[in-house]
Amino acid sequence: MSVLYDRVALIGLGLIAGSMSLAMRRAGIAGEIVGTARSAETRAVAAEIGLVDRVTETAAEAVQGADLVVLAVPVGAMDAVAAEIAPNLKPGATVTDVGSVKRAVVDAVTPHIPEGVHFVPAHPLAGTEHSGPRSGFAELFDNRWCLLVPVEGADPKAVDRLRALWEAMGANVEEMDADHHDLVLAVTSHVPHLIAYTMVGVADDLRRVTDSEVIKYSAAGFRDFTRIAASDPTMWRDVFLTNRDATLDILGRFTEELFALQRAIRTGQGEMLFDYFTHTRAIRRGIIEAGQDTDAPDFGRAKKVQ
Amino acid sequence: MSVLYDRVALIGLGLIAGSMSLAMRRAGIAGEIVGTARSAETRAVAAEIGLVDRVTETAAEAVQGADLVVLAVPVGAMDAVAAEIAPNLKPGATVTDVGSVKRAVVDAVTPHIPEGVHFVPAHPLAGTEHSGPRSGFAELFDNRWCLLVPVEGADPKAVDRLRALWEAMGANVEEMDADHHDLVLAVTSHVPHLIAYTMVGVADDLRRVTDSEVIKYSAAGFRDFTRIAASDPTMWRDVFLTNRDATLDILGRFTEELFALQRAIRTGQGEMLFDYFTHTRAIRRGIIEAGQDTDAPDFGRAKKVQ
Repeated sequence: MSVLYDRVALIGLGLIAGSMSLAMRRAGIAGEIVGTARSAETRAVAAEIGLVDRVTETAAEAVQGADLVVLAVPVGAMDAVAAEIAPNLKPGATVTDVGSVKRAVVDAVTPHIPEGVHFVPAHPLAGTEHSGPRSGFAELFDNRWCLLVPVEGADPKAVDRLRALWEAMGANVEEMDADHHDLVLAVTSHVPHLIAYTMVGVADDLRRVTDSEVIKYSAAGFRDFTRIAASDPTMWRDVFLTNRDATLDILGRFTEELFALQRAIRTGQGEMLFDYFTHTRAIRRGIIEAGQDTDAPDFGRAKKVQ
Repeated sequence: MSVLYDRVALIGLGLIAGSMSLAMRRAGIAGEIVGTARSAETRAVAAEIGLVDRVTETAAEAVQGADLVVLAVPVGAMDAVAAEIAPNLKPGATVTDVGSVKRAVVDAVTPHIPEGVHFVPAHPLAGTEHSGPRSGFAELFDNRWCLLVPVEGADPKAVDRLRALWEAMGANVEEMDADHHDLVLAVTSHVPHLIAYTMVGVADDLRRVTDSEVIKYSAAGFRDFTRIAASDPTMWRDVFLTNRDATLDILGRFTEELFALQRAIRTGQGEMLFDYFTHTRAIRRGIIEAGQDTDAPDFGRAKKVQ
């Protein structure tokens, strides 16, 4: 494949940026990959393991001469980073991001983008519960979605090139507007994460059930929740603070529904529970058919099926 | 390994009973394995795939001459099954079960057990989201816990033999009293399942976010919830109806905690959220160290880590 961007600057060197660097190398679509991170330790690790071709001390330095600048920092840090790099952006360059919230990023970054530079927000729906410069891998985006959220008046050529980049890194690309993105993600990711964090917190608080028992006997269910609740705290704090309205909206619906099920349990309405659980089973089937997960019996964890 | 029970009767031929049959064969610890199920289709499939050595039409027939009888039916069916088999139980035999709730099973089954027959309730903490006679596999219990809940005055020899059986099937065995079991499982399994069912139900109800989008963009978080929410509806209806008090207790704590986090989001208390999420991360670490899950980056689903 031919080179899409002669120089790419990654601002932030965590799971997503690291995986992008490795995926871009795998595809041979970037000339030089420059990277930076706020933490000196992260920069040192990235340099040591050769995660990018060149590590710079500052974001302002990293973006010099870059054709593509990727903001891969927590959503709450986008404003400050955009302000820092703005004076150094190359005319004609594209700036993108990988934040899990889009309206807040659009609002924070757009005012800093100079005339002649293209801003194309993006969000790859991929990740693991790990973070940091050692957590990335080239296959992270394979067969995952990347949602592009072009702002009004975006240059179609800049959008197309970014789309080509994500496709070359293995992703399937779709476009969506920022507010709709934030609502969809509140349902499919943000509120589920908050609930998992909450449940793990509840377990930890219980004094009658000692910590060690909760851990020792963590079965399917809680075990999956702890995996989700091990995700990066800074990233998730920012997600909830910046996608507040959609999160609270979906949380309200969740609570309403939970109270209905709680009432069914209290009053012994077995038929209602059975119907509810039968219905949710069908949704799982849809996800497997959409190719976003496998049907292998995961609660048994990588055991061979007879 | 030597034979522990000359004849084992499995009442119910779903995921757990099927996996037990295959695990007992693997270990060579059972003479004949007899099985039955209420559904004629399940019996036919079990016979066709040779899941057990012999399939009988009724539970009463299956238990004749059996040294070990395993009640592997939904918790709500235990009472009726125990009543049906009681007259046919062999003197000196052991009856056990694999139900996810223990107080209700002890209360339902104990009155039916004849003098000279031992009842030793058990609960293997293992499963997948699949069910039915084709879902079992011999490795399901490997390195999983099986909790024995001996009733007062249980014969130590009968308990020891059942312990040996579970260990031979790959499980680690511990003893616990019924009420404590039900509370621990409410935290580690029952409430997490209810929450997952609820979240999937909420997503399905939303009209602004179409079904196909929720499915298409189901990221880590929701995708894991749908897996949990695909579990057997009959089994879970019975779990909630029979472990009602502990479930409602833990649900109350969950809601209280969720409201605190919701308030933090609404009022923008970033530090509180960050501290909470940092704390839950540590619990995950404990589970991995306890050997109950791996540290492989699961959200990336079986991708090779660099």
